[in-house]
Amino acid sequence: MSDGRHEGGRDASPDASVDFATFVDLVTLYQAYASALDARQYERWPEFFIDDCVYRLQPRENFDRGLPLATMAFESKGMLKDRVYGIRETLFHDPYYQRHVVGAPLVRAFKPGRIESEANYAVFRTKLDGPSTVFNVGRYLDVVVATAEGLKFASRTVVFDSEMIPNSIIYPI
Amino acid sequence: MSDGRHEGGRDASPDASVDFATFVDLVTLYQAYASALDARQYERWPEFFIDDCVYRLQPRENFDRGLPLATMAFESKGMLKDRVYGIRETLFHDPYYQRHVVGAPLVRAFKPGRIESEANYAVFRTKLDGPSTVFNVGRYLDVVVATAEGLKFASRTVVFDSEMIPNSIIYPI
Amino acid sequence: MSDGRHEGGRDASPDASVDFATFVDLVTLYQAYASALDARQYERWPEFFIDDCVYRLQPRENFDRGLPLATMAFESKGMLKDRVYGIRETLFHDPYYQRHVVGAPLVRAFKPGRIESEANYAVFRTKLDGPSTVFNVGRYLDVVVATAEGLKFASRTVVFDSEMIPNSIIYPI
Repeated sequence: MSDGRHEGGRDASPDASVDFATFVDLVTLYQAYASALDARQYERWPEFFIDDCVYRLQPRENFDRGLPLATMAFESKGMLKDRVYGIRETLFHDPYYQRHVVGAPLVRAFKPGRIESEANYAVFRTKLDGPSTVFNVGRYLDVVVATAEGLKFASRTVVFDSEMIPNSIIYPI
Repeated sequence: MSDGRHEGGRDASPDASVDFATFVDLVTLYQAYASALDARQYERWPEFFIDDCVYRLQPRENFDRGLPLATMAFESKGMLKDRVYGIRETLFHDPYYQRHVVGAPLVRAFKPGRIESEANYAVFRTKLDGPSTVFNVGRYLDVVVATAEGLKFASRTVVFDSEMIPNSIIYPI
Repeated sequence: MSDGRHEGGRDASPDASVDFATFVDLVTLYQAYASALDARQYERWPEFFIDDCVYRLQPRENFDRGLPLATMAFESKGMLKDRVYGIRETLFHDPYYQRHVVGAPLVRAFKPGRIESEANYAVFRTKLDGPSTVFNVGRYLDVVVATAEGLKFASRTVVFDSEMIPNSIIYPI
């Protein structure tokens, strides 16, 4: 039972056998990322990435068709930091809370120092004096690498299911 | 701390001490199953089950009362494959996306080669040009067994909370 | 990769290296708690806590500002048991189902016998003959301790995002 990876869905990979510490580190990375965003600590957001990183936020329709159009697309930590500056400007004008509920990561490939993984997520939005509603659901597609400061994202692609909301996405998912 | 299983809620079981590899395999099975369905790769769905399997989808009211009525009830992998054929016919007529967010599995019993586990889930639905909404929430009740191809479901019972939607459930949950 | 905890988001802590058995026990505690509440087994709820415990349910606005006002605040297992008695009285008058979907726990601090952890959650509500809807989303902030009966909550603070629903929260989250 312990040496056979799940193959039923053809997800088997000889690379996919993460050790325990790495698995917990990966879960921690995912949840810490969500926690920082939900706490509106946006200045922490770029620190989850390496310097030479990619962050893309894209509707599923475009992603599945291989279209390059994205709601957000950044190609370095510097660009993420610029975005954070812009976010700070908007925070006081349209206050609402976000809450990420993220599934356990599914490791697609693993070799020491590098993980390809994905996870489903739902983000709920709560406006002042309003109820909590579904804001955005989709999937993270990630490349995670080991650094001296722990695991970080080399690439995070956020593919969301609805095409209705791209213009109103101000904060990273 | 490491030898006492959680007993507060009377979930304790001397059988419930899974090893790390099995735990990660189980998490992977759950997430890979959700990922395949959300990607609309329905032909992969039967491959998450053993040949002699049970899949049931049932409203909570019926399940709690022990009533046999189910929205879907299949008793072999062959029946699952027949269902996939039917699904393929409908895919083009009512296009919408599903997204599963699944909690970590709760292991109720474990012996080598056999796990009884459950997990809560929420499925969100997104129609073209529409927002993402809550479609179906409930609980998976599973019997998972070890095979030469990794962990597979011997039995998956999906118990959903709402009675309103059984007729509109086309795709497996 | 296995010795560096995630530091990107400044969540690093030399205390945070849980062992595998503790991690699975913690995940199990979170999911068993949710499962008991969703099954309406409210008499089991106090048993997830030690005798000298704290349970608080508080809107985020108050929590963030350090205001003491809470929707529920109990300071012993005895008080939780009293609450259960009150819940039993209301169960037949306003029947609805709850369903918790809880993310993986994020361990903030760990030393043998004591864990500080948190997790995001979404609770869905289903009324008879109605659809499932988002009821309450937020974050658990917990202190978990080892006991002879396994892990239990010394403190569970539930911080929810919406201010709209405090009066209608009858059941614990």
